[in-house]
Amino acid sequence: MESRNDYRRLPADEVRCVVAGVLEACEVPAEDAAVVAEVLVCADLRGIESHGVSRLIPYYVDGIRAGHLNPRARPSVQRSVGGLFAMDGDNGLGHVVGKATMNRAIEGAWEHGIGMGAVGNSNHFGIAGYYSAMALEHGMIGFCLSNSRPLVMPTGSRKAVLGTNPLSIAIPAGRHAPLLLDMATSGVPIGKVEVKRRRGEKVPRGWGADSSGRPTEDPAEIIGGGALFPLGGPRETAGYKGYGLGAVVDILSGVLSGSSFLTSVLAGADPGASGVGHFMGAMRVDPFCDPGEFAERMDWFIDELRGAPLAVGEEEILIAGDPERRLEEENHRLGISLHRDVWNAIAELASELGVEGVQ
Amino acid sequence: MESRNDYRRLPADEVRCVVAGVLEACEVPAEDAAVVAEVLVCADLRGIESHGVSRLIPYYVDGIRAGHLNPRARPSVQRSVGGLFAMDGDNGLGHVVGKATMNRAIEGAWEHGIGMGAVGNSNHFGIAGYYSAMALEHGMIGFCLSNSRPLVMPTGSRKAVLGTNPLSIAIPAGRHAPLLLDMATSGVPIGKVEVKRRRGEKVPRGWGADSSGRPTEDPAEIIGGGALFPLGGPRETAGYKGYGLGAVVDILSGVLSGSSFLTSVLAGADPGASGVGHFMGAMRVDPFCDPGEFAERMDWFIDELRGAPLAVGEEEILIAGDPERRLEEENHRLGISLHRDVWNAIAELASELGVEGVQ
Repeated sequence: MESRNDYRRLPADEVRCVVAGVLEACEVPAEDAAVVAEVLVCADLRGIESHGVSRLIPYYVDGIRAGHLNPRARPSVQRSVGGLFAMDGDNGLGHVVGKATMNRAIEGAWEHGIGMGAVGNSNHFGIAGYYSAMALEHGMIGFCLSNSRPLVMPTGSRKAVLGTNPLSIAIPAGRHAPLLLDMATSGVPIGKVEVKRRRGEKVPRGWGADSSGRPTEDPAEIIGGGALFPLGGPRETAGYKGYGLGAVVDILSGVLSGSSFLTSVLAGADPGASGVGHFMGAMRVDPFCDPGEFAERMDWFIDELRGAPLAVGEEEILIAGDPERRLEEENHRLGISLHRDVWNAIAELASELGVEGVQ
Repeated sequence: MESRNDYRRLPADEVRCVVAGVLEACEVPAEDAAVVAEVLVCADLRGIESHGVSRLIPYYVDGIRAGHLNPRARPSVQRSVGGLFAMDGDNGLGHVVGKATMNRAIEGAWEHGIGMGAVGNSNHFGIAGYYSAMALEHGMIGFCLSNSRPLVMPTGSRKAVLGTNPLSIAIPAGRHAPLLLDMATSGVPIGKVEVKRRRGEKVPRGWGADSSGRPTEDPAEIIGGGALFPLGGPRETAGYKGYGLGAVVDILSGVLSGSSFLTSVLAGADPGASGVGHFMGAMRVDPFCDPGEFAERMDWFIDELRGAPLAVGEEEILIAGDPERRLEEENHRLGISLHRDVWNAIAELASELGVEGVQ
């Protein structure tokens, strides 16, 4: 069993520095290494441990060492019309590809009102919410979709054919913090099922199915041959809607970009290259209304939601992004919380590679 | 209890003609009346009875007669940048406003790659899938969002503050029919709960909550003071994701367009005007990839989904839009199926108004 004692707090700056150092030692150019470190640490700051620095070695360092990932990738625009474009990720680190794409989308939005890129030949990019939120600094609405390895069964099937295919949208407000929705299109991530199994607990009906496609409350059945349900659960609670959303994310990210989709994600013909695809963009507010009025109206919207009558036993109504923002404030103050095993492995690798600054 | 005998089949052309005639007799210009009739009959053809001609009298004729709806509205573009624009619906019939907006979006997409409009001061427009599908005739990807009257509780609340806020996306394929996702962001529509109550049946846990915000299986509690859950159900099955999606639909449709949002939809300061808002657009495929290759890849995508192993007891895996397209084919052949009370009321009103062609 895990306990709080297995975790230690570390200043975000220090972790960022060590992570970037490890990547530089693996042939990633300094500028790109800084981007990856920034996005990974951002996930840990927001409390999204599953997408943070715990992935540094298994997803990225091991991928580079095995020759599956191109550490010196140069993403490039392949074609474009107005603010819309296709980006080739050059099989690079998804964070580098994602940030380059979003920067280009923001430029496109300044010129055309909206910029959007379909990105192929990329890799796991961490949290979708990092990229959508980049638009906020420009007062724009941002969004980001990505496909991912198959873990979710479409309604009617018993096989994991769809990824948890996340979607994120960031919308600026006025005096209130922005709305930042960042969600997988499955009901829950596989990590939540794994935690339940480790604890010997049942899962709520609606999280996943066994190997015959029947809903189950046993996490071991979901992991051992079953699959996650899409958002909405089984058919009777409208899981076909989550399935439809997950399919749309895969089409825009994988089919439109000319990259992998469905079961070919992370299992393409070319062994190693994951073929992950993304779809992301930024949109100005002023083509639609006065940005000052929009900010004011967003504040009213948020105030009305927060002020809605509470259900019995509830303490407050949250807006998408609230929980992560609170954790981010806390973790900025106290340091990010990393599992000892995770940090020890990174620190060990860093000193092997001669990276400085490891405590 | 309802039975099949309460329904009769009528040729779509005849119904379209009578519906248009009734609207023309209510001061709607012939061209606009034809649009409304077309969209309403399209819903019945697709089997979406709740958004079809059954709404003609209560939503539209009564609205015009009470002075709440402008029968001679002239939607107009208020501002624009590139292919993006704001549309004022002039408090007109939502179908007329929606079709005008989508036509403008398609023009914008031909010129700029993408066209999108935020629409305020509109009204109920029927099925969102009608508008998104307009893009398909141009080989484009279409989408359409709308807000609606409050029926859904945000996670943590016990009050219906959000609409069922539908979202639709239409994606062309090659030899296969297009994907057409058209879904409310609630788990189920209120109509499904009403049917269960009439039949004296329980509803699955996850459809809605009672007046204290607790999940209930009693449809009478959901209707009498409770509310629908967002897609995903209660918190434990990730209903906060459906809540987040519904909020985003409301922001793009209502906040960005300068129209009503949350509980002000259909209950604005101006008595009568609903202030419904929409957000819709069309996007070309060729800024991202070769359209022929895209069509081929969409066919692969659909083939792989349809070919996935079936869950026990299942007969096939459906793609979004399949059920409605099958009904549409059947109803084109056999005539659309209308409840006798619905048709009798329309036929009676039509003959009062001197509309020809009523059987």
